[in-house]
Amino acid sequence: MSQSEKPYVIGLDLGGTNSVFGIVDADANVVAETSVKTQGHGESVELYVADCLQALQKIIDQVGGIGKIRAMGIGAPNGNYYTGCIEFAPNLEWARKGVVPLAKIFSDALGIPVAMTNDANAAAIGEMTYGAARGMKNFIMITLGTGVGSGIVVNGQMVYGCDGMAGELGHVIVEPNGRACGCGRKGCLETYCSATGVARTAREIISTTDRPTLLREIPLDKIESRDVSIAASKGDEVAKEIFEQTGRILGEACANFAAFNSPEAFIFFGGLTKAGDLLMEPIKRAYEESVLKIYRGKAKMLISQLDDAKAAVLGASALGWEVALERGVERGLV
Amino acid sequence: MSQSEKPYVIGLDLGGTNSVFGIVDADANVVAETSVKTQGHGESVELYVADCLQALQKIIDQVGGIGKIRAMGIGAPNGNYYTGCIEFAPNLEWARKGVVPLAKIFSDALGIPVAMTNDANAAAIGEMTYGAARGMKNFIMITLGTGVGSGIVVNGQMVYGCDGMAGELGHVIVEPNGRACGCGRKGCLETYCSATGVARTAREIISTTDRPTLLREIPLDKIESRDVSIAASKGDEVAKEIFEQTGRILGEACANFAAFNSPEAFIFFGGLTKAGDLLMEPIKRAYEESVLKIYRGKAKMLISQLDDAKAAVLGASALGWEVALERGVERGLV
Repeated sequence: MSQSEKPYVIGLDLGGTNSVFGIVDADANVVAETSVKTQGHGESVELYVADCLQALQKIIDQVGGIGKIRAMGIGAPNGNYYTGCIEFAPNLEWARKGVVPLAKIFSDALGIPVAMTNDANAAAIGEMTYGAARGMKNFIMITLGTGVGSGIVVNGQMVYGCDGMAGELGHVIVEPNGRACGCGRKGCLETYCSATGVARTAREIISTTDRPTLLREIPLDKIESRDVSIAASKGDEVAKEIFEQTGRILGEACANFAAFNSPEAFIFFGGLTKAGDLLMEPIKRAYEESVLKIYRGKAKMLISQLDDAKAAVLGASALGWEVALERGVERGLV
Repeated sequence: MSQSEKPYVIGLDLGGTNSVFGIVDADANVVAETSVKTQGHGESVELYVADCLQALQKIIDQVGGIGKIRAMGIGAPNGNYYTGCIEFAPNLEWARKGVVPLAKIFSDALGIPVAMTNDANAAAIGEMTYGAARGMKNFIMITLGTGVGSGIVVNGQMVYGCDGMAGELGHVIVEPNGRACGCGRKGCLETYCSATGVARTAREIISTTDRPTLLREIPLDKIESRDVSIAASKGDEVAKEIFEQTGRILGEACANFAAFNSPEAFIFFGGLTKAGDLLMEPIKRAYEESVLKIYRGKAKMLISQLDDAKAAVLGASALGWEVALERGVERGLV
């Protein structure tokens, strides 16, 4: 097929800071990319969308116009698959106080079908379409970023639940009356196992013990999970113990999750996975030690195979292909 | 349609003590029933099956012969949907040490398709087909018996997982280093919230405090959950507190389960639900207090609508209808 006949979709990775748009072909090549600031438009979603459309138009023109674009997929915090709305997203100034029908707004403006889901679900769809979960029918995607997100796949389908908001395993309570969480409750998984949680653990150890560690060279309120990772790679005992502890909590939590859908794999994604075996080994060990006997040795513990920089856009684009297929549009013929 | 044309399925509720067979029509009428002892055949499944077939033949003849029977469904402890096998069921003498292909054995003997799943999944299928979950696409069935079982439905489908063994929420650990569980681990939900768990809570309170309670009239090792229920209905403070505590643990556990599939309902089944509001009110209260804000007020807390005595047979028969339909056999024409 000639280049001119190739169909594309748009993937939008809507993050707290940047909104990254990619035009993606059926082989997962990002053929054009652009981005706009997510914030700085005040409470008006119109100004944000106007900025997006202006930037988008340029890359749409690059691939030969909107006629080449079959659909658009959006991965966004608090994005609801059923309604196409962003619902009360605390970190988005124009979606903090209400329900914003962003999928419809883009669909009306561009004249193509637009689907939306939350960022972790988009990552799971991306992994299933292009990554480590190809061919898997039952798996759990865990994203370890500022928070802990999850996307759950059962019988080859995303789990959206009765309201489009299923799959918030970062807010399973793992420590009753534990650390205060941004959600207003206590002891959520993400207060321990996110990048923020790892930094919090480091600060706790430093301020409550006098154990020697390289981390003391950094001002307490400036410590990030990356610093813990660097210290651990230099053999720092405290830093290694922080990953051991974080991995153990994650592994034990995953052992409980297994009782739900007996997944063939857990796939971890995000900055913390850069720690590699420092994190993955304790996860595996704690999981196998604490999981119910009938599940032992069954679930693989994998790190995402998608390039961090492109994964979110690819995930969103995979959702775009889904909606394109649903509308009866033929995919690639490639 | 005349009686003679009506198709049927067989439902088998395979319990630790009795195996109950029902012949069920498309309107959920159990038109014939029989049972055999599950135990007493030693380690040989052949003797058990021979007993079953002898009893079955009589009720099959009653409805006009095997030609009227489209399929059979079995609900059994550790029953695996994918393989049709009972796998290492600790309470079944002929399936304790291995994997018994019971679905195939019955299918070969009767010449009809036979499907199997575990008892809690069968209950969920029954509830979806005939009970409180009719029309629901996302719900969680929790069975409160000697243990705690569960059947999970996502997008209208049972969750079987990668190995056919998904949905063991009774073995989610709710209290790290808590009560010893039959599974070899500690703090599983079922050590607190099963009938056995309720009796255990009663014995703990009686032997570690000197609080006055009607339960002291019963020998410590003879206390059953039913006694706690009776005492509570007489206003006994300790007994009421036991249900309060049990309900709270269940409600908090369900709040964590909601983060998985955001169900439209939790449906409770089994002896403990006889306690009614004594159990259900604390479940509802603890759930709403501890569930993530986005899920609040969304999930109904229901008691099964199926007659206890027939629910398990109906659930198994509903699985029978499923397999009958799958094999392209028309259902009822009713």
